[in-house]
Amino acid sequence: MKEKETLNAYKERLERFLSDLPMAGAPDKLREAMRYSLLNGGKRLRGCLLLAACELGGGDAEQALPFAAAMEMIHAYSLIHDDLPAMDNDTMRRGKPTNHVVFGEALAILAGDALLTHAVEIMASSRHPRAFAALGEIIRAAGIGGMLAGQTLDVTNEGAEPDIALVRDIHRGKTAAMLTAPLTAGLILAGAESERVEAGRKYGQHLGMAFQIVDDLLDVEGDPALMGKTLGKDIEAGKLTWPACVGMEQARLDAQEHIRQAVDALAPFGEKAGFLRALALSTLHREQ
Amino acid sequence: MKEKETLNAYKERLERFLSDLPMAGAPDKLREAMRYSLLNGGKRLRGCLLLAACELGGGDAEQALPFAAAMEMIHAYSLIHDDLPAMDNDTMRRGKPTNHVVFGEALAILAGDALLTHAVEIMASSRHPRAFAALGEIIRAAGIGGMLAGQTLDVTNEGAEPDIALVRDIHRGKTAAMLTAPLTAGLILAGAESERVEAGRKYGQHLGMAFQIVDDLLDVEGDPALMGKTLGKDIEAGKLTWPACVGMEQARLDAQEHIRQAVDALAPFGEKAGFLRALALSTLHREQ
Repeated sequence: MKEKETLNAYKERLERFLSDLPMAGAPDKLREAMRYSLLNGGKRLRGCLLLAACELGGGDAEQALPFAAAMEMIHAYSLIHDDLPAMDNDTMRRGKPTNHVVFGEALAILAGDALLTHAVEIMASSRHPRAFAALGEIIRAAGIGGMLAGQTLDVTNEGAEPDIALVRDIHRGKTAAMLTAPLTAGLILAGAESERVEAGRKYGQHLGMAFQIVDDLLDVEGDPALMGKTLGKDIEAGKLTWPACVGMEQARLDAQEHIRQAVDALAPFGEKAGFLRALALSTLHREQ
Repeated sequence: MKEKETLNAYKERLERFLSDLPMAGAPDKLREAMRYSLLNGGKRLRGCLLLAACELGGGDAEQALPFAAAMEMIHAYSLIHDDLPAMDNDTMRRGKPTNHVVFGEALAILAGDALLTHAVEIMASSRHPRAFAALGEIIRAAGIGGMLAGQTLDVTNEGAEPDIALVRDIHRGKTAAMLTAPLTAGLILAGAESERVEAGRKYGQHLGMAFQIVDDLLDVEGDPALMGKTLGKDIEAGKLTWPACVGMEQARLDAQEHIRQAVDALAPFGEKAGFLRALALSTLHREQ
């Protein structure tokens, strides 16, 4: 219960920061398209993780807000571009029409570009003494060895046979990288020593993998047409998911194992890590 | 002649740096799509300007190479996204098929995203003591108050009546911002005092406006079908260009005036600014 309150408190602070975010010089239409996708009621998991990691390291969450906001802006940009007709061609997200449905494809492409660029601009405007290092962590996670690697592998292997090494690489890039950067960047901002930053990295990587496996499981279990089918080849045919590679039962076990390792990684932080421990454990029981 | 040699020397160093650019972790297809557009024989004006500005300020051009490369990567990303079917729908650029024609739309979107992200990653990996400030200058130029503002105004005003205030805002964003950042970032890297950085900014802004007006003029004069038509309304009907607003003759005069002001701005640098002075003057006599 206490963890839920902590999470909500982080989320509210971040939501307020995002809502008040200065967007000086942006033409009205661009600002509108950016805000449409940025302020759409997401869980703010990436941003909240960064604030939590910063406080875990003894830092001031207030000063970390621009970096938490940057995580959310990068996440929002990736969803806008993912949803484009040339990509996943999704018309709905979180119960609302996707960005390109509302603003047209050209403006959606620009709004995505703008959210990525503005995320960097917000971080580059910070006067935090460790801003440069934190910015580096976040942009590497979003980069060609992180999120963009995962998205490319996803796009270029559409319709491929489910392959465990490939799916692992996609999950690492698309999901785990962007759940790891909040940990490392938050701890760096707090001035944590490198062993602790690496412990945070390990937590984030395992949390990310568990999170994506659970996502894949919910996709199947949430779909009545697929309910109960537990053989790999029956699960979301043609989709590169973890259950499609190893089956539902093994996927559940793998998610549990990742959560165990995520929790283990928190050992150096002792009692103070209660929030991140609870958050990891709740991943196994979350709803879509 | 001497200026031409200096320009070629900058260009060669930059070309080598770009060709050897590490792209660790990028899937092969993504790297291929990024390099296709990055290494396509561009003039490298933005990167060379940054190296020249750094040396003008007494800095070491070698250490400025990642920032010059970042300018070119951001320029390349903007062209890939501009060429997309949802934007300008261009199929050829510099005599070669555009990125999306070769790699498909999905990969072209990702390659553009990746060039922008990697530009930031390259700058964020620099150990230059003023890297953070230079990164800020460059990303603001590419941002919602700079290049992306210009692109948005261009996209959202397609088919609008040529209007001098609107065209000025588009040129400022799409062209001048990205020709100004090399000056300010290069001088910042050199540790130049703020009056000199601002002199560089003024030079870049006027150079950028002149450059775009000459571009507009070449577009008209290079098209035999339009040759000799000098009335605003006859010039590139429906296109938001400077000559379309003020006519060919006035546009030529305006370009000359911008160049005069660009050269004036170099006064604080005295003799050392010979290269940038010559480069500005050559803008009036360039070919497409």
